[in-house]
Amino acid sequence: MTSRRAINGRDYTARFASFAGYAYPRSRVFDDESFLGQVKRFLVGRPIPSSLAHHERLSKATGLAILSSDPLSSVAYATEEILRVLMIGGLAAMSLAPAIALMIATLLIVVVLSYRQTVHTYPQGGGAYRVSKENIGELAGLSAAAALLIDYTLTVAVSVAAGVAAITSAFPGLHISRVTMGLVFVLILALGNLRGIRESGRMFAAPTFGFIAILLTLIASGLWRLASGAPPEPPPVDPLPEFNAGTLTAFAMLTAFANGCTAMTGVEAISDGVPAFKPPESKNAAATLMMMATISVTMFIGISYLAYTIGTIPSDTDTIVSQIGRAVFGSGTPLYYALQVATMAILVLAANTAYADFPRLASIVARDRYMPRQFMNQGDKLAFSNGIIALSVAAGGLIWFFDGDTHQLIPLYMIGVFLSFTLSQTGMFLRWRRLRPPGWQRSAAVNGFGALLTFVVLIIVAMTKGPEGAWIVIVLIPVIVTVFKKTKDHYDEVASQLTLRDWTPPARRTNIVLVPISGVQRAVVAALRYAESISTDVRAVYVNDNTEQISALKNDWQTWGGSTRLVVLESPFRSLMEPLLEYIDQVERERSNAYITVVLPEFVPAEWWHHLLHNQRALLIKGALLFRPNVVVTSVPFHLR
Amino acid sequence: MTSRRAINGRDYTARFASFAGYAYPRSRVFDDESFLGQVKRFLVGRPIPSSLAHHERLSKATGLAILSSDPLSSVAYATEEILRVLMIGGLAAMSLAPAIALMIATLLIVVVLSYRQTVHTYPQGGGAYRVSKENIGELAGLSAAAALLIDYTLTVAVSVAAGVAAITSAFPGLHISRVTMGLVFVLILALGNLRGIRESGRMFAAPTFGFIAILLTLIASGLWRLASGAPPEPPPVDPLPEFNAGTLTAFAMLTAFANGCTAMTGVEAISDGVPAFKPPESKNAAATLMMMATISVTMFIGISYLAYTIGTIPSDTDTIVSQIGRAVFGSGTPLYYALQVATMAILVLAANTAYADFPRLASIVARDRYMPRQFMNQGDKLAFSNGIIALSVAAGGLIWFFDGDTHQLIPLYMIGVFLSFTLSQTGMFLRWRRLRPPGWQRSAAVNGFGALLTFVVLIIVAMTKGPEGAWIVIVLIPVIVTVFKKTKDHYDEVASQLTLRDWTPPARRTNIVLVPISGVQRAVVAALRYAESISTDVRAVYVNDNTEQISALKNDWQTWGGSTRLVVLESPFRSLMEPLLEYIDQVERERSNAYITVVLPEFVPAEWWHHLLHNQRALLIKGALLFRPNVVVTSVPFHLR
Repeated sequence: MTSRRAINGRDYTARFASFAGYAYPRSRVFDDESFLGQVKRFLVGRPIPSSLAHHERLSKATGLAILSSDPLSSVAYATEEILRVLMIGGLAAMSLAPAIALMIATLLIVVVLSYRQTVHTYPQGGGAYRVSKENIGELAGLSAAAALLIDYTLTVAVSVAAGVAAITSAFPGLHISRVTMGLVFVLILALGNLRGIRESGRMFAAPTFGFIAILLTLIASGLWRLASGAPPEPPPVDPLPEFNAGTLTAFAMLTAFANGCTAMTGVEAISDGVPAFKPPESKNAAATLMMMATISVTMFIGISYLAYTIGTIPSDTDTIVSQIGRAVFGSGTPLYYALQVATMAILVLAANTAYADFPRLASIVARDRYMPRQFMNQGDKLAFSNGIIALSVAAGGLIWFFDGDTHQLIPLYMIGVFLSFTLSQTGMFLRWRRLRPPGWQRSAAVNGFGALLTFVVLIIVAMTKGPEGAWIVIVLIPVIVTVFKKTKDHYDEVASQLTLRDWTPPARRTNIVLVPISGVQRAVVAALRYAESISTDVRAVYVNDNTEQISALKNDWQTWGGSTRLVVLESPFRSLMEPLLEYIDQVERERSNAYITVVLPEFVPAEWWHHLLHNQRALLIKGALLFRPNVVVTSVPFHLR
Repeated sequence: MTSRRAINGRDYTARFASFAGYAYPRSRVFDDESFLGQVKRFLVGRPIPSSLAHHERLSKATGLAILSSDPLSSVAYATEEILRVLMIGGLAAMSLAPAIALMIATLLIVVVLSYRQTVHTYPQGGGAYRVSKENIGELAGLSAAAALLIDYTLTVAVSVAAGVAAITSAFPGLHISRVTMGLVFVLILALGNLRGIRESGRMFAAPTFGFIAILLTLIASGLWRLASGAPPEPPPVDPLPEFNAGTLTAFAMLTAFANGCTAMTGVEAISDGVPAFKPPESKNAAATLMMMATISVTMFIGISYLAYTIGTIPSDTDTIVSQIGRAVFGSGTPLYYALQVATMAILVLAANTAYADFPRLASIVARDRYMPRQFMNQGDKLAFSNGIIALSVAAGGLIWFFDGDTHQLIPLYMIGVFLSFTLSQTGMFLRWRRLRPPGWQRSAAVNGFGALLTFVVLIIVAMTKGPEGAWIVIVLIPVIVTVFKKTKDHYDEVASQLTLRDWTPPARRTNIVLVPISGVQRAVVAALRYAESISTDVRAVYVNDNTEQISALKNDWQTWGGSTRLVVLESPFRSLMEPLLEYIDQVERERSNAYITVVLPEFVPAEWWHHLLHNQRALLIKGALLFRPNVVVTSVPFHLR
């Protein structure tokens, strides 16, 4: 992943810095000197300089390994999601599965052909956000961005949940809940990505090609045994209660189709990642895209066909792929375990894809000022730490809320996928119509057909999955788009308030320094010394609510106060803040052309929990003065041992 | 409540202020100028000056009303808690209830006689913390304080839960969960006490005397009907599943006795509140104590006797008092509803007692430096805001965790009560032995007997209620005591680091001012102007990670930078912080005898949520520099419209 992110990261650097008029365009979540910084250093390693980041580029093979894990891995659950609907009609209805799979495969091929054109048109990377923003408009672009951000989150949640299901199918005796396992996977992904995954190509190749190899072996063996007249026996499972429960309606068929469309998630990744390929980038990316589609379609149809012919039945304890594995390889054989481990591994890799996609998209959107600047930041590992953290929290929350159940998460998944497909391809279609390059009609037809088809699927998904939970996403997308626009409006407004054009800078002013004290001790004297270094007009302010103390204080003042004026304020309401604020008002009235600096001693404790025991007054005073123009509050640290 | 708190408040004022060597001994949680301050003003009203606080003193009658609601109100649930154990043995075993009630009444009289002596000995208020700390030692005092703080929290939780039960018994059709109702009561109590309850005497008199009146009426009517040969019929209820389930063991008898001891909670209040009475304070307080005991014993024995003779059976939907009310007054009669409302009212008042007790004890303990100074603070309503908030959160948590069920909360309740009884009376006993005033033997005997008896009950409670949940409290008390001691150690250590004795104050130093910038805009120019007002050595620091920007910046600098030096730092790792920190190191090495002030522009947004969109860099820089001695960070506010 590093390479893809790195190259894009570099690509954006100039834009980050060009976001002028703002203080500090880039950020690190933790700093090295702090305790948290040290923890981070331990967990995520040393930073790497940007000069090292430009080398790695993707060959077709590594590109396939890195960018295809998401679409390939959906084979692990897509067939099952189809069967879960069809089983209402019993075994007979389940014979429809291969047909539905074939339809989805066709759809996938249309989409891939359509995306192939995007890859050639946008060698700099053509994500749905950019394509629809450029060619349709702001609203379309923001909708695509919102849809994709939701989707990346669901990719993590669904892939992790399905990966956990692969493990619990193989080892039903595991005494860890699937929620706990899922959250642990998310945590590992988060830490790994905060650290920055270095050996990306090699690391990704093994599980991806391993998964492809074992699945093709599974399909080939299964077909061989079917042909040889010794058909594999399905393992005994507890079927779900819906099994054989009624007749199949047309609506249920559409639902089964919509469910199967999960196989199409993740096609976006390659069109997004074009600049990460070795030159010629577009050509290599397009070839990788076609490879991915071929393998994906083969595996998906093969698994769906085997699932039907063997007679597997959806169950809560054993996934369909695991059942096929048991039937073909035999339960407990090394090949069966290899299948389950490979499935888990590619699913975790697929989740990892989102860990590159989400922060990168967030950073592009933030660069356009639609998201808070925190997401524009790059960590010193060239990873987008805040995006990684936001993604992990959201995905972990989904896993927790939906009890780590793939099947419950699926309905939320596809709205975003097909909305971004539709917008992206509509954008391409409009682009062809606008620019009209030679042969544009054919290209426009491909993208237009893709847009139409994915739009129809989007409607089917919204209709069939809306009641099952997709409505959450349908509601969420316009909400997110509104937040994007509000954020942009705010940043634009601030920028207009910061411009130097036609601005008269403030005149030089004097500085009156107030030091609120409640007694005389070292921290107070240290604060007074500092105050004396920044102004010649320093006044110590004591709020008197107890006349007995005042003579002792005046006595101490003669020894330690030096030439600094001591102002005693009376407090009839036993409030410290009001007299202080009134005095500041008074000083402001007398010297309207001066800064007023309030200097406070601040204890810096040696232990973090000691913070709870100190500095409450300082915090209150800072809070009270924050909204006053011309008043500056300064804390002089006093370090406790 | 105001009067009691006020007078104690005044009493402590001198001590608060005499806690010298610390900045700002008193605090207000919110300030008036801030948004939160305005919310607070709306919810809790204007402050009252301390001069108004000294007037109200308690007569015996108002003293009874204010300080007795806790012990009197426990009549509402104590009998039921006895019956809930006895019912295992069926109706026959429940005939033991009056006998057990009589034993508890005797115990109560012994404890009250013992506390009477405390009242006379400590006219300034003799809480268990003070008495055991003075006469036994620090550990005993802290244990008593921990026990009492836990107890006050449970008083709120148990009283509110029982009050809710009184309401749901009368109106079984209410569609609000008891947890929700309980939390609403806690919220009302919290707001009421933050606001400061003014008309305390009058406000308290009505429910307390109303409750006494209606309960005595209930008992008298019940006895009359029993005597007149027309005994009241118990209403039909669903008995709990334990009813008639086995034989009663000796252990169960002890448990029933321990349960009934809830009737004794709250006796501490009067001995704590002595200085709130009209002079002669001790005499009036002692008389009130005796009145309270007489009424409490009469009501408790009366209810227990009626519960048995009428034949009421514990149920989850109808309290015992409500059942007696239905039997004697008739379901749905005005008198029955009056009984339930009065019960609810006095229980809420009892909870309110804890809202005076908890913050006051916390403030005394904090004054002795065993608790964070936040608890020593007084709000400007003379109420101890932080204590009120802490109490509400803890009690609300208990209600939520134990599902608003009185019966589940009771086991936790009595450990603290009887530990503080035992410690307080042991303290008195040791005091008599030490001081040996005339007739000390008799006094020592009374307190010694009280200590012994309450110690025996403490053991019984620990044995019988420990497994039911009291173990939590048994574990919690030493934990709290340890935290108390650690806190004290820390404050003592800090005080020794702050003392001026034998201290050489720092010499006067110059001040080098650094202004980190990422470009030139209004907020940056404003920060530079301020920087120029506090030093003649000002340096703008730009971290350069993108050479294209630098010439534009230098151009801007000629127009806006004035005479201020521009320092450009190179950043090979694309990190902003590291070059800045290294530069600060370098400046420190060159000018070891200077302050380094880092001036940052800080955006003050017009809307709170805009905070999320700004100042991340400033926060990071502050965090990174917090632990560096001699470096002062100053934010110059730039107000956005």
